[in-house]
Amino acid sequence: MSTQKPQSAPAPTTAITPTREQNYAEWYQQVVRAAELAETSDVRGCMVIKPWGYALWENLQRVLDRMFKVTGHKNAYFPLFIPLSYFEKEAEHVEGFAKECAVVTHHRLAPGIKADGRPGLVPAGELQEPLVVRPTSETIIGASFAKWVQSYRDLPLLINQWANVVRWEMRTRLFLRTTEFLWQEGHTAHATEKEAMEETLKMLEVYAEFAENWMAMPVIKGEKTAAERFPGAVNTFCIEAMMQDRKALQAGTSHFLGQNFAHASDIKFSDVDGKVNFAWTTSWGVSTRFIGAMIMTHADDDGMVLPPRLAPAHVVIIPVTHKPETAQAVLDYCTRLAADLREVAYAGRTIEVELDNRDIRGGDKSWQWIKRGIPLRVEVGPRDMEQDSVFMARRDRGHKEKISVKRDEFIATITTVLEDMQSGLFARAKAHRELNSKRIDSRAEFEAFFGAKNDAEDEATSTGGSVKGGFALAHYAPDDAIEDELKTKFAVTCRCIPVDGPAEAGICIFSGKPSTRRAVFAKSY
Amino acid sequence: MSTQKPQSAPAPTTAITPTREQNYAEWYQQVVRAAELAETSDVRGCMVIKPWGYALWENLQRVLDRMFKVTGHKNAYFPLFIPLSYFEKEAEHVEGFAKECAVVTHHRLAPGIKADGRPGLVPAGELQEPLVVRPTSETIIGASFAKWVQSYRDLPLLINQWANVVRWEMRTRLFLRTTEFLWQEGHTAHATEKEAMEETLKMLEVYAEFAENWMAMPVIKGEKTAAERFPGAVNTFCIEAMMQDRKALQAGTSHFLGQNFAHASDIKFSDVDGKVNFAWTTSWGVSTRFIGAMIMTHADDDGMVLPPRLAPAHVVIIPVTHKPETAQAVLDYCTRLAADLREVAYAGRTIEVELDNRDIRGGDKSWQWIKRGIPLRVEVGPRDMEQDSVFMARRDRGHKEKISVKRDEFIATITTVLEDMQSGLFARAKAHRELNSKRIDSRAEFEAFFGAKNDAEDEATSTGGSVKGGFALAHYAPDDAIEDELKTKFAVTCRCIPVDGPAEAGICIFSGKPSTRRAVFAKSY
Repeated sequence: MSTQKPQSAPAPTTAITPTREQNYAEWYQQVVRAAELAETSDVRGCMVIKPWGYALWENLQRVLDRMFKVTGHKNAYFPLFIPLSYFEKEAEHVEGFAKECAVVTHHRLAPGIKADGRPGLVPAGELQEPLVVRPTSETIIGASFAKWVQSYRDLPLLINQWANVVRWEMRTRLFLRTTEFLWQEGHTAHATEKEAMEETLKMLEVYAEFAENWMAMPVIKGEKTAAERFPGAVNTFCIEAMMQDRKALQAGTSHFLGQNFAHASDIKFSDVDGKVNFAWTTSWGVSTRFIGAMIMTHADDDGMVLPPRLAPAHVVIIPVTHKPETAQAVLDYCTRLAADLREVAYAGRTIEVELDNRDIRGGDKSWQWIKRGIPLRVEVGPRDMEQDSVFMARRDRGHKEKISVKRDEFIATITTVLEDMQSGLFARAKAHRELNSKRIDSRAEFEAFFGAKNDAEDEATSTGGSVKGGFALAHYAPDDAIEDELKTKFAVTCRCIPVDGPAEAGICIFSGKPSTRRAVFAKSY
Repeated sequence: MSTQKPQSAPAPTTAITPTREQNYAEWYQQVVRAAELAETSDVRGCMVIKPWGYALWENLQRVLDRMFKVTGHKNAYFPLFIPLSYFEKEAEHVEGFAKECAVVTHHRLAPGIKADGRPGLVPAGELQEPLVVRPTSETIIGASFAKWVQSYRDLPLLINQWANVVRWEMRTRLFLRTTEFLWQEGHTAHATEKEAMEETLKMLEVYAEFAENWMAMPVIKGEKTAAERFPGAVNTFCIEAMMQDRKALQAGTSHFLGQNFAHASDIKFSDVDGKVNFAWTTSWGVSTRFIGAMIMTHADDDGMVLPPRLAPAHVVIIPVTHKPETAQAVLDYCTRLAADLREVAYAGRTIEVELDNRDIRGGDKSWQWIKRGIPLRVEVGPRDMEQDSVFMARRDRGHKEKISVKRDEFIATITTVLEDMQSGLFARAKAHRELNSKRIDSRAEFEAFFGAKNDAEDEATSTGGSVKGGFALAHYAPDDAIEDELKTKFAVTCRCIPVDGPAEAGICIFSGKPSTRRAVFAKSY
């Protein structure tokens, strides 16, 4: 391989406006748009996931689904609607359950006079009992579990659902927080507390493995404090990742629900001795938020950067020829190259190739693929064809670097190159996290690390440069009042208490109480 | 191979009560229940798809999705909710659009006084504009298409969505007609009428191929008359299958929408000469109804019968041993057999094996798998193990027939056996259809074939024996008034005018007008 100048005219010099440094929040929206991952719709807070974004989601689904099945789970599907009475039952058992949700009250549209006095269609056929569009399915799945579980022989019951859910969010951002989103929710029931806790931690481990090995996103596995727990859970575990603006993003949660939901849904079984007990349950989920996390972990000022193992396509081949007499030969050459690449196995599938022969300017075409984050771009012109070589550009090396590679060498080394990119993305993200994580041993240090809350520094306007801090690792004795204060004064939350790593005797930097482990504090999404 | 008596005690003699002959509708519900495919929920008309049923759906999805992608379609995802105003816009363009749908009017639950005077949770936070849970997505996808399509270069636009949809149905039946169901909906836009019509027919062909080659269900491809068309469509094409009670079931539709929806959604493009035109669009869909169709095509009085190519699992291995000292050796033998079978490629995946070592009665265990419709059951006891053979039962051969097969022969021939079952199911269904299809050449013959409508003969109570008729192939000049009369008097509809087969000059048996093709008439689901 030898580094050379590109054959074609220089491409336009900037892709995403603004840059991360100028305005991180706006940069994020522009990357989503430019990469054609998703767009907003006329429905408040609901997004359209475009083909490139949905193909990424399908790859996530495929890999996660295999991991769930290997660990013994089966998929099923439960109703979109939950009767209002289920929420009343839950409200009795669970403090602080979600109330912002979409409520169906009618089952017909009929001609009538609208609120503004004009004639049109109005809701008709009022329901006796309103239905809620599921914000999560513990209660409706619990109703089935209560029927399915009779004896210890029916346990463990290990179920997963891929579904859409709706939570009425006041402020939404594509992928990170939308009114409707896609997710999977695992729900399991066990005969013993120990088994349920093992399941909770096993799925936390599955999420962490997936985030690190497939998304190339380093995560901290930890437990939430009481203040940040899922309503109704006994323990909530999570994976937390650091975004490029040094804020934390919770990317997946796994809840140990004790017997709380079994009580609410009446999930009981008779044990070996015929004694009737309540089951122990868990739930765990990840969502399309994962895509937002990948963008904020890997994308750069040129656009999206896809981890190769999950990329909808690995390589785009662009025929470059200005003479009509060579066009067909170059296209045929590219078609054969694509066919050969599609035979190569990689990351549980085969290399996926886009052959882009559209009749648009070469520079525009390259930039579209750069913004979309495809790992490899390959250009083939008549001279390359004669030399049986291709011009290759790696998405992780800046948009100017292209190298000439012999065709056969390109095919023989493509999986090595992709794996090098995959591990490079992970290493870069991990180095960024380590650089911006600090052991903090006093409240004064903590305050200096984060600085006072800046009103202009909220999600919608924050810039990469102005967010202070990162991950503060500090001894902490959990206390709701302290967390309230930190949120108000510094916009900081306790992200988690890591489950890995050594125990370490210490003193809470806020209360002076004893602590055995450092917690992670950060600003967050 | 030699036919022998089973080693274990005789199994119970009947599985499904009632039989098809006794009460077809009730038999259907009992098969769904006994096969553990789905169950009703507390939410009116919404079903729970159980793991065995959902795995079947996943297999359908996987194969269909591949067929859609091979034909150039990409998946995307659009909002669950559709603004009320979109329906008003559609109502202007489309006569007879669906009005029975779930309407979201509030976005919060709050404490309050309920209709019955008791305190509880009530809907709060009324929406300015109500939202409708999608019954189908032409309008919301049309809104995106209007943005995505600018120039002829953006066409054709070939999109598919896998999603849940909701239609408020008065009478529901698991899989066949439910308030919420899962489906795929293809939506495409084209520059010319010809291309859009080609797409419409191409997807009809995909559905027919899938139904026949994968579901083992023979179908007639045809066009609907105006009376049965999708509201807003110019032409609606469908695949129609005959169920075991000789009624027709529409299993998939493909609509040529002309420019109607492009007008409603403002999908325009500039052509090569810069002239602005409306696009030509299509839509096509199949749903979880496919599972109902498979049940009513193949299941028998013992329960479900799965077409091997789509079966969630192909073979169950049951260790049969009553002596503790041989139990482990038999189990190990079965585990090795399962591992070897899982290496065998079949129908785009590998043989999927259930190893059932549960501690329940052997007869109950066998019957569970018979009812679930697994293609092959294999029993292995200590004596089989010594002889290196297994006892095999085929689901399509009645529950009493078991044969002893050498282990290696079983592995070597399993794909041949499964393909034999697959083609046998298809042949049996096709013979049933042919036996019950009749060329009808006069109104008198037609009336004798179907008999007058019997009020007791509706879906909920019909028995296999009492439904008269089948498929009547008669010359017909489409006329809404005639179809109204046939529906009222005979509960018969024109299912379609087949697109294949020779043209044939004739005279409409109802009106005496000329006709060039026979139409298919039947009672239907």
